[in-house]
Amino acid sequence: MLPFFTENFGNPAAITSAHGRRASTAVEDARIAVARFFGVLPPEIYFTAGATESNNIALNLVRPGEHVVTSLIEHKSIVVPAERADVTFLKPDAEGFVDPDQLRDALRPNTKLVSIAWANGEIGTIERIRELAAICRERGVLIHSDATQAVGKIPVDFSLLDLASLSAHKIYGPKGIGALFVRRGTRMHPLIVGGGQERNVRSGTVNVPGVIGLAAALQLRAEEMDAEGLRLAALRDGLRNQLLATIPDVSINGPELRLPGNLNVSFDRIDAESLILAMKRFSLSTGSACSAGERGPSRVLVACGVSEPRAMGSIRIGLGKSNTEEHTSLLAADLRRAVARLREITAA
Amino acid sequence: MLPFFTENFGNPAAITSAHGRRASTAVEDARIAVARFFGVLPPEIYFTAGATESNNIALNLVRPGEHVVTSLIEHKSIVVPAERADVTFLKPDAEGFVDPDQLRDALRPNTKLVSIAWANGEIGTIERIRELAAICRERGVLIHSDATQAVGKIPVDFSLLDLASLSAHKIYGPKGIGALFVRRGTRMHPLIVGGGQERNVRSGTVNVPGVIGLAAALQLRAEEMDAEGLRLAALRDGLRNQLLATIPDVSINGPELRLPGNLNVSFDRIDAESLILAMKRFSLSTGSACSAGERGPSRVLVACGVSEPRAMGSIRIGLGKSNTEEHTSLLAADLRRAVARLREITAA
Repeated sequence: MLPFFTENFGNPAAITSAHGRRASTAVEDARIAVARFFGVLPPEIYFTAGATESNNIALNLVRPGEHVVTSLIEHKSIVVPAERADVTFLKPDAEGFVDPDQLRDALRPNTKLVSIAWANGEIGTIERIRELAAICRERGVLIHSDATQAVGKIPVDFSLLDLASLSAHKIYGPKGIGALFVRRGTRMHPLIVGGGQERNVRSGTVNVPGVIGLAAALQLRAEEMDAEGLRLAALRDGLRNQLLATIPDVSINGPELRLPGNLNVSFDRIDAESLILAMKRFSLSTGSACSAGERGPSRVLVACGVSEPRAMGSIRIGLGKSNTEEHTSLLAADLRRAVARLREITAA
Repeated sequence: MLPFFTENFGNPAAITSAHGRRASTAVEDARIAVARFFGVLPPEIYFTAGATESNNIALNLVRPGEHVVTSLIEHKSIVVPAERADVTFLKPDAEGFVDPDQLRDALRPNTKLVSIAWANGEIGTIERIRELAAICRERGVLIHSDATQAVGKIPVDFSLLDLASLSAHKIYGPKGIGALFVRRGTRMHPLIVGGGQERNVRSGTVNVPGVIGLAAALQLRAEEMDAEGLRLAALRDGLRNQLLATIPDVSINGPELRLPGNLNVSFDRIDAESLILAMKRFSLSTGSACSAGERGPSRVLVACGVSEPRAMGSIRIGLGKSNTEEHTSLLAADLRRAVARLREITAA
């Protein structure tokens, strides 16, 4: 990214300038790389400021009088715009899976769009997106997937879909840049208008260093993902087994086969907020960072049928590139001590 | 910005993490610096992906049944959303000035917002924003100004206004980051919704390095602006005088007192597009980079009453930090030769 902050400072829209043409070429090369990673065509990739914006643009396809189907465990950048439309929220099963039969039943003649995340970042569920997409294609309904939590962690193929969203910062890329895949021929309704950049889907000067950073982050993930996924899944399973073996009254939320670095654990008779505050050496959370300001139990866990007391005692553990077995052993030991102490205090 | 791409990789919304808190502190420190630069309060500054988004958010204040007043020489990120509302476009005078009396006459009981750019990037006009704002305040109408072309070039004081927009990349800062000033107590309607970041005005993970870069760019402009403005104005006046003295049938568009680095020149019997292509050593343009893909005369010049043939022979010259008298002398000489050659070809 660095040269695009300094000597290559051109605006890709300034096509009469050599600097501008250099920037434009770099952006189009990045578009080709991103498209190839996802198995789609370069003109089907639009650069945005991140997955929230991409998700909002996708939902903006739904016009007054049209119906949208999504699930109760989607990101708020799906839920909030969906609530403005005529919407059906599908309830996932206990492991977070959206039921294809339920989806089929929810489709109506005026259903414009179905939006189901590829994977859930809180409980690690990887949806049966191929099956869900097939139902939509068969019924002539557009299918969008927020792939932010899946990209770079598990293989994703956007060619199954009509639209897909992602952010660079979830794959160790820069903040402030993301992409929206839109199948060729889909008529879009832009959210941000003006100069008509990104073929009118998203106006505003293109964030050139961000685009370069997104493409580079995907390139690195392409090289590392398989080995890193195996490593993280083993690390995560080891941690899970340690927790189950050493702490009483612990349960795991989410399915067995899940995002490699994800673990979601419930501790009976524990307030998760207090536990997180007690865990000084580690950064844990109850839900997504995007709702870190909210109180109350995770709406994702509640939607999966987890009881409110159990949800209030649940934490989400995210393992990544920098984590080793040393960390997970320390984490397991710290959790064991903190849970014991907090339960003592509560019982007293 | 660099440490915020590498070791300080936190998400400022992840308040339970030390990394997140560090990022959040850095963002809030930047917000204080930005607010101080513009003479407003830190909670009145919202970070966005750039001026296009900021302008769109400002225009989104206007709800169905409400009226908006703007001018014919605004950026397209004002014009396009304004056209969706009940809008009055004020026609500026020949030098690009919006007439305060015309503004007063255009206000109606249902006028919600007036949006007039602080300065025009094509013809350099610096609007009488204090006077325009006073009329709006007196009539209880919100006043917004797209200050993108003025910020860092001339002193701007947002405390005159209710809303103001800017982009970092116009002041040698990074692309993909901007800000919107909104006076305390103004009820906003967000464009991008979800996690509720930026106090619900603009959802999406905050672009931490971008925010740091915007604040740093403003800090640098605060130190350089006065001296650099004088230097650029002198350079620009020298160039103007050289062009007027050495090329026949040349005229200057825009006012005498204008943005320091801006010059807009018309060459009779010249097609500006051909002239720009002939000027291989310099990056010139006919209008704004944001409309570089468009054909036809600059709509800004046409709105100022410049005849179509003259507008078709007009170029915009932007001088900045890297430009010296050596450049302007070369530019004047190259323009003289290119104009002579093109006129010869046309006459033949």
